[in-house]
Amino acid sequence: MAAAGTTGRRAPTETLGSAVHAVQWLDAGPTVRLLDQRRLPAAEAYLDCTTESALQDAIRTLAVRGAPAIGIAAAYGVAQAMRQAADAGLRVDVGTATSEAFDACAAAVIARYAATRPTAVNLFWALDAMARCVRATAGVLPGPRAAALFAAARALHLDDAACCLAIGRHGAPLLLDGGVITHCNTGALATGGIGTALGVVRTALAMGRRLHVYIDETRPLLQGARLTAWECQRDGIAATLLADSMAAVLLRAGRIQAAIVGADRIAANGDSANKIGTYGLAVLCRYHGVPFYVAAPTSTIDRTCPHGAAIPIEERQPDELTHVAGVRVAPAGVDVFNPAFDVTPAELIAGIVTEEGVARAPFAPDLEAMVTRAALRRAGGAS
Amino acid sequence: MAAAGTTGRRAPTETLGSAVHAVQWLDAGPTVRLLDQRRLPAAEAYLDCTTESALQDAIRTLAVRGAPAIGIAAAYGVAQAMRQAADAGLRVDVGTATSEAFDACAAAVIARYAATRPTAVNLFWALDAMARCVRATAGVLPGPRAAALFAAARALHLDDAACCLAIGRHGAPLLLDGGVITHCNTGALATGGIGTALGVVRTALAMGRRLHVYIDETRPLLQGARLTAWECQRDGIAATLLADSMAAVLLRAGRIQAAIVGADRIAANGDSANKIGTYGLAVLCRYHGVPFYVAAPTSTIDRTCPHGAAIPIEERQPDELTHVAGVRVAPAGVDVFNPAFDVTPAELIAGIVTEEGVARAPFAPDLEAMVTRAALRRAGGAS
Repeated sequence: MAAAGTTGRRAPTETLGSAVHAVQWLDAGPTVRLLDQRRLPAAEAYLDCTTESALQDAIRTLAVRGAPAIGIAAAYGVAQAMRQAADAGLRVDVGTATSEAFDACAAAVIARYAATRPTAVNLFWALDAMARCVRATAGVLPGPRAAALFAAARALHLDDAACCLAIGRHGAPLLLDGGVITHCNTGALATGGIGTALGVVRTALAMGRRLHVYIDETRPLLQGARLTAWECQRDGIAATLLADSMAAVLLRAGRIQAAIVGADRIAANGDSANKIGTYGLAVLCRYHGVPFYVAAPTSTIDRTCPHGAAIPIEERQPDELTHVAGVRVAPAGVDVFNPAFDVTPAELIAGIVTEEGVARAPFAPDLEAMVTRAALRRAGGAS
Repeated sequence: MAAAGTTGRRAPTETLGSAVHAVQWLDAGPTVRLLDQRRLPAAEAYLDCTTESALQDAIRTLAVRGAPAIGIAAAYGVAQAMRQAADAGLRVDVGTATSEAFDACAAAVIARYAATRPTAVNLFWALDAMARCVRATAGVLPGPRAAALFAAARALHLDDAACCLAIGRHGAPLLLDGGVITHCNTGALATGGIGTALGVVRTALAMGRRLHVYIDETRPLLQGARLTAWECQRDGIAATLLADSMAAVLLRAGRIQAAIVGADRIAANGDSANKIGTYGLAVLCRYHGVPFYVAAPTSTIDRTCPHGAAIPIEERQPDELTHVAGVRVAPAGVDVFNPAFDVTPAELIAGIVTEEGVARAPFAPDLEAMVTRAALRRAGGAS
């Protein structure tokens, strides 16, 4: 395991934290250090990206994944590239010509980062924030502009970490002592902080709850087995791994008191899209009388989307099912159904936890109010 | 692909059949030919076992699996060993001494087969039938005794094939045009005929139903992906493979009109133990208003077991979850929950299809009557 860097290596979660940091900024280089998720769980290896192309390759090849973590990595990447540009020569000249050169350089860097993962919404959201910072500092000397871009990237990281903490604070009281089941990875590996659903678990544990986490392995890509099981082990969270199809037995045996998962998009009425397998788990929870919670930042709420049927579901390549770890496990040419996400209707959800609180049924008014409060809060913070 | 043998290569299912034969007897050798299921789906390879030790190794290492198929293979194995013993020398002598030598030899062979898979109930059931045949032919010349043992093994095979056909005949009218979901492998690879649940599908297709089979991959051992998908492809049955966690989406979308699965043990009240994942599927079917059927021979019904809670559930090794195809997919030392089976309570089952008909709720009287009828039928056939 590589030594930790000197600057910005921890999100502001010292009292309630995780030893796991998906993305770190090191002033030396400057370097964007990624926990290489391609190598988990076999090895905890760090990838020190000191060039733009290295970091873009890392994003493209999933060394870092999880929408918030990708956005943070790319924002740091823009700051890194512009500091290197400033150090390399832009700093020797001043005036309009240099400022325009900085603008053009930054725009090109941002465009290249935008091309790394064309569908990750948080990536564009983070890059938009960086572009706004470039515009807001027009005419400033290259060195201070690069410093401002680092500050903007850092703010994105801290804001995400703060969101995770707030989600945890609001969600933790929902969990009683006992077993909690989760699906996919929603932890420090996916965010800039303690995670969303897994952040709620961490906060409840820090509050003294006696929880045991049951982790769906999450076929087909096994994020539960590969990432969440590793993250829990790394942070000393008591956890048990199971195949997705085994959750029903635990629910029937009364070993699960709540389910909590993340979300990729939440419609205005509360219908929530998340990793495939989430909907089935929600139905099983309903049948067994166990509450099912969703935890996600308000940025996940899509007010333009009235209900779940309007959320497009990506169907992915068959080889995710026909091959595991590169080995063929199904006959060649077999027809495959492989949706990446499913939609859990609001009526199966006991509560949606965001950084603004817990939305309850009927969800629409609560969600609307949360989005408005979050926008006001961010506008206040940015003024 | 090896050429088919000359004798006994087909169960009596010419009009409604499968190109898949898990176990075949070839007179030349004599040989017990197994479709090597360890190599599926990558290769359709046959293993010609001409010695007792080769066949026992094959059973032990899962070249043949599925309780009925294992029993048939072992019965043929006893017949093979005793024909070889008779050919090798026992035939030259006659009288009591030779008969006793035959008895001792047969007992030793049967004991060695019984040690191959200590938990497979059908294996002992088949070997008991062979031992009865040894006793019934005491004093007969070795050659004719060996022939009688082959006839007994053949009868077990034909009886299993006939059971599959009868299950199919009773179950097929339950399936309407549309999607049918199944779990694990219940087909020709697991039985001596067209299968149980998959036999019902085959029969419905032969009756002209327009069915599409949705196959749960069946974690952790992927029998759906490795075996059922291959078997359907081999027999031209329209099928789609999915991860177990994706069934809920298909059910919600109205793409499934029925579920049909096999059973490993059925309690007197109809509670049914089957491959892990079956219970969750049954709950999902109930929530979506889709009928859930179980198909199994009456030999699966355990009258001494009053209800599902009395069925012991084997928990298997963690590495079935932490490794796939030999590759580690979860961190070392992670705690794992890995039950091999689960129990679906009778109230979630729309019907239990056996070779005697379709049992309906309340299941106890129907199941009791079926077991009695089957025993009378077999006693009649054996007289």
